[in-house]
Amino acid sequence: MLETCLTNVRRRAPIVHCITNYVTINDVANVLLACGASPIMSDEPSDIEEITSTCDALNLNLGTLHRWTIDSMSAAGRLARNLGHVITLDPVGVGASRLRRDTALRLMEQIHPDAIRGNASEIRTLAAGTASSRGVDVRAADRVTEENLSSMVSFVKDFAARSGSIVVLTGAIDLVADLERCFVIRNGRPELSLVTGTGCQLSALLAAFLASHDPPDRLEAAAAAVCTMGLAGEIACSRLQPGEGSGTLRSRILDAICNLDAAALRAGARWQLH
Amino acid sequence: MLETCLTNVRRRAPIVHCITNYVTINDVANVLLACGASPIMSDEPSDIEEITSTCDALNLNLGTLHRWTIDSMSAAGRLARNLGHVITLDPVGVGASRLRRDTALRLMEQIHPDAIRGNASEIRTLAAGTASSRGVDVRAADRVTEENLSSMVSFVKDFAARSGSIVVLTGAIDLVADLERCFVIRNGRPELSLVTGTGCQLSALLAAFLASHDPPDRLEAAAAAVCTMGLAGEIACSRLQPGEGSGTLRSRILDAICNLDAAALRAGARWQLH
Amino acid sequence: MLETCLTNVRRRAPIVHCITNYVTINDVANVLLACGASPIMSDEPSDIEEITSTCDALNLNLGTLHRWTIDSMSAAGRLARNLGHVITLDPVGVGASRLRRDTALRLMEQIHPDAIRGNASEIRTLAAGTASSRGVDVRAADRVTEENLSSMVSFVKDFAARSGSIVVLTGAIDLVADLERCFVIRNGRPELSLVTGTGCQLSALLAAFLASHDPPDRLEAAAAAVCTMGLAGEIACSRLQPGEGSGTLRSRILDAICNLDAAALRAGARWQLH
Repeated sequence: MLETCLTNVRRRAPIVHCITNYVTINDVANVLLACGASPIMSDEPSDIEEITSTCDALNLNLGTLHRWTIDSMSAAGRLARNLGHVITLDPVGVGASRLRRDTALRLMEQIHPDAIRGNASEIRTLAAGTASSRGVDVRAADRVTEENLSSMVSFVKDFAARSGSIVVLTGAIDLVADLERCFVIRNGRPELSLVTGTGCQLSALLAAFLASHDPPDRLEAAAAAVCTMGLAGEIACSRLQPGEGSGTLRSRILDAICNLDAAALRAGARWQLH
Repeated sequence: MLETCLTNVRRRAPIVHCITNYVTINDVANVLLACGASPIMSDEPSDIEEITSTCDALNLNLGTLHRWTIDSMSAAGRLARNLGHVITLDPVGVGASRLRRDTALRLMEQIHPDAIRGNASEIRTLAAGTASSRGVDVRAADRVTEENLSSMVSFVKDFAARSGSIVVLTGAIDLVADLERCFVIRNGRPELSLVTGTGCQLSALLAAFLASHDPPDRLEAAAAAVCTMGLAGEIACSRLQPGEGSGTLRSRILDAICNLDAAALRAGARWQLH
Repeated sequence: MLETCLTNVRRRAPIVHCITNYVTINDVANVLLACGASPIMSDEPSDIEEITSTCDALNLNLGTLHRWTIDSMSAAGRLARNLGHVITLDPVGVGASRLRRDTALRLMEQIHPDAIRGNASEIRTLAAGTASSRGVDVRAADRVTEENLSSMVSFVKDFAARSGSIVVLTGAIDLVADLERCFVIRNGRPELSLVTGTGCQLSALLAAFLASHDPPDRLEAAAAAVCTMGLAGEIACSRLQPGEGSGTLRSRILDAICNLDAAALRAGARWQLH
């Protein structure tokens, strides 16, 4: 099932406009090429509307936020929403500053992203910001474990219902939820956290996968993107030789996504529906 | 013949000031080091004139254009022109927005780059913008094939004559033309398009190669830069192992340029003069 | 002795706020992860104070300086100084423009970095700028050789005394000095200069190492950071296969830092105290 989603990305080759941080911008461009999509990067306010118009999806990433990129995200987001393009939001470090928090919450209100991807702490910050109070469900969001899995699944479904977005919470166990269903995904490897930007890359993949599917199939497409990134990480780690580490791993993640086909994704994807 | 050009770059070690996009800025710096040149990156208007003055060449790249980089490109470009430095222009995505198109055309008028490098669609956009009408020769520029080769050669020679720049149109077949002669180059591999920034890297190489040669030898130097990049791509692809892809390829391109010597370039360069 | 410093970085896992150039920002983030620290990048004036407050160290790097990053460096620097955080300064290309020179000298006055790292020409420029006259000791600073070693050691100790910072002058021989002692370090390999950003990476390592040690141990910690980077370069070079070059080397440096342990650092560090 999910493997068809990868095939669809390769077939439709969506163009993804990224307004993204400068730390991982090169990896984000390369991961889009590796999965069969095309990147365009522009964050200049007087440039972005025309760029967004010609694309299929918009990927907003809050790392290294600048004042002009906030304006660009707002304008590109509204336009993409009007044009019916897919929008993804990656609230990098949203708990670390008021600027990032206010920007993320305003973007959620203004443009209703199709998907939001973050780690537990980022998603928790956003959920708290939009909830009327800071309740137990939010604090429970700290980290997904086998023990708290069912309450975390409820938490992300609830946030998906309130936000209207597919919620992708990544960590040792990944959750991909809309208001009714939650994919619990156990691909990936802890070593991925040694490479900066694997989260940013996943958010870009999400944009490409969602843009290649109509709304009824988008939860599956989002889950397929998460399995693709996680499985690529597993393949990349398994190929590391003694003495190799994060530098080689960074290259091998892209290698694995380049070479991943539907059969390998079907065989390697580890998910359950909750 | 062309192989001497690589030797000259290594001997003269030109310093290239790059005002370039943030997606591939690291690759651009590394490719200049790999070929024996030195990079300096600065795009702050109050910093660039002093930087430009101390360099041998200026490489302007329109990806991730910002308002302040446009000012910087103009100022650095005029100064470099007055100082007799080599200037190269890479009109990344010039067809995608009016801002990029207007900037590229204004820069062409203001500073008369020594060389302009783009893919067929970018060169076509520039040629249309400077022509009095949008004629057949422009539409013919879509893609260089064996079938339309002679009309494409005429097109780039004509654009070179009108613009006063060496025109480098890259694709499956690369064309490097001034108003009289056109190198038709058949190095390179389609896999290079899986790595973002190989075009940006080539434009930086062009700046280094042109800056190492006096005007009468610059068409050869430009062709040598194109053969160097293409041949490096061939070597990089030939060294890929099963399971490797765009991540490893990105590293191997730099490896190949580091290790390329005049003998290998002579043996591997595939060009004809039209 | 120095090897304990690496262990301490891995144990304390400091968070390093980097206001750094866009050429090597990805490498800087990845080297911090590789050594066991965590990076946060932000250079937006309205974002940086909150970010700095939550970090353990601040790493300022003057490459690709912009007007807004100068404001950010000043504000983040003052705050970090008030909070007692470690601050490192990397005056990239400080001799190349007045903007960089004025910024570096002003930052030195305002925030008194705990450590300043540069090549001989950059350190010479700073020392000249703060000295009452441009004396012989400054011109002697051109390059550290076995012949001029003792005068260079005096020069960096003198500059450390005048600036109040640990001075790290890197080259074929590295010097790490406070006003009384100077580590003379002979790790590293000339091939490292083929990869852009190894200096920027070292400055980030310095921030992480200093932040993991109290002031009396910081000279040792700085020396350990320099030995770590140099030894990683040696290991990376020794693993290169025929046909590999700067692209693969870039990855292997990170690999080596990931895999370096205290025993390897003790066995490989080559230093003397002068």
